[in-house]
Amino acid sequence: MALQNKKVSDAVIKRLPRYFRYLSDLKENGVLRISSKALSEKMGLTASQIRQDLSCFGGFGQQGYGYNVELLYNEMKKILGVDRGFGTIIIGAGNLGQAIANHAKFEARGYFLKGIFDVNPDVIGDSINGIEIYPMEELEGFCKRESIDVAILTVPREVTAKVADFIVSLGVKGIWNFSAMDLRLPDEVVVENVHLSDSIMVLGYKIKNI
Amino acid sequence: MALQNKKVSDAVIKRLPRYFRYLSDLKENGVLRISSKALSEKMGLTASQIRQDLSCFGGFGQQGYGYNVELLYNEMKKILGVDRGFGTIIIGAGNLGQAIANHAKFEARGYFLKGIFDVNPDVIGDSINGIEIYPMEELEGFCKRESIDVAILTVPREVTAKVADFIVSLGVKGIWNFSAMDLRLPDEVVVENVHLSDSIMVLGYKIKNI
Repeated sequence: MALQNKKVSDAVIKRLPRYFRYLSDLKENGVLRISSKALSEKMGLTASQIRQDLSCFGGFGQQGYGYNVELLYNEMKKILGVDRGFGTIIIGAGNLGQAIANHAKFEARGYFLKGIFDVNPDVIGDSINGIEIYPMEELEGFCKRESIDVAILTVPREVTAKVADFIVSLGVKGIWNFSAMDLRLPDEVVVENVHLSDSIMVLGYKIKNI
Repeated sequence: MALQNKKVSDAVIKRLPRYFRYLSDLKENGVLRISSKALSEKMGLTASQIRQDLSCFGGFGQQGYGYNVELLYNEMKKILGVDRGFGTIIIGAGNLGQAIANHAKFEARGYFLKGIFDVNPDVIGDSINGIEIYPMEELEGFCKRESIDVAILTVPREVTAKVADFIVSLGVKGIWNFSAMDLRLPDEVVVENVHLSDSIMVLGYKIKNI
């Protein structure tokens, strides 16, 4: 993937998991080859958009023959790091943390849940989906022992910044942040904020204005 | 708000809940007035971006005086329909449905949870955060009796399309969809897809490419 290091726009990056999702479905349904037109209709994009998006990574299509589904699926896995895999922890074993821990599909996408951390003695020692809940005191040792790339933060808003700073100091490279707070961290740390309340409010705006 | 019906871009719409969030914090902290420069630094946007965004709705700033926090907060509430309120149900009382039902902050944003629906007899009759879980058979009557604008879908992927079609037939105007499936519904129905797995995969791409 010689072209992979060129700057890819955020809009394209955000669409990559959708390609992965649709290609994974096509593969499961036994589809071997698909035209950019047919793929575009499935995905609700234009064919030229798809060609442009994939050209950021070297193309993969053959003029007149469309895309080889398995090949493109495997390339998408590499591009998204699914083949590499990411050691993952959840901090905060409340409802949302539990829901995420039970969401088995993350493994198929390369996110291997190694541990869950919480401060609540009532849940420490329990397991969710086979993964143990550890006390926060063990977080530092755990991150040093295991190779942890990604921390999923489902802690209360008021402690989010503190916890984020701490895990960054332990070498975590990416934070999936569910608290309604935009984190400011060093440039080498990647943050994806999931502001659930922001998302439902967009719905309300659109209902009012449709 | 004479200008409110003009076409506002998706990028601006997506930022509106963030304005609401920051203004709500400023108001709670007793801030009465804020310049577009200070607000932009807090929000990580440029001052001209903020002026442009707000100009879609009529402006609200006074040259040299900045924004009146309470006034702008109240306008944002109107723009997002927080003052109007949206009758809301959750369909699917699994972990994610429960996490959302426990997320009390949705009420402060205008989303009033009226009922939760599931097919599992083990949970029907239980309450989450004071809201009862009803059997799916009661959904039709419930939607006719209560005024339901928004349905939050946390059902398994394979039944999502069928459930979505059904609730649209019952007059629901907006769907907040958590299944990893892009819904295709009539134009007058608003859908916000929350593809959690897509979001974590963006994180992995960025970790690999930083």
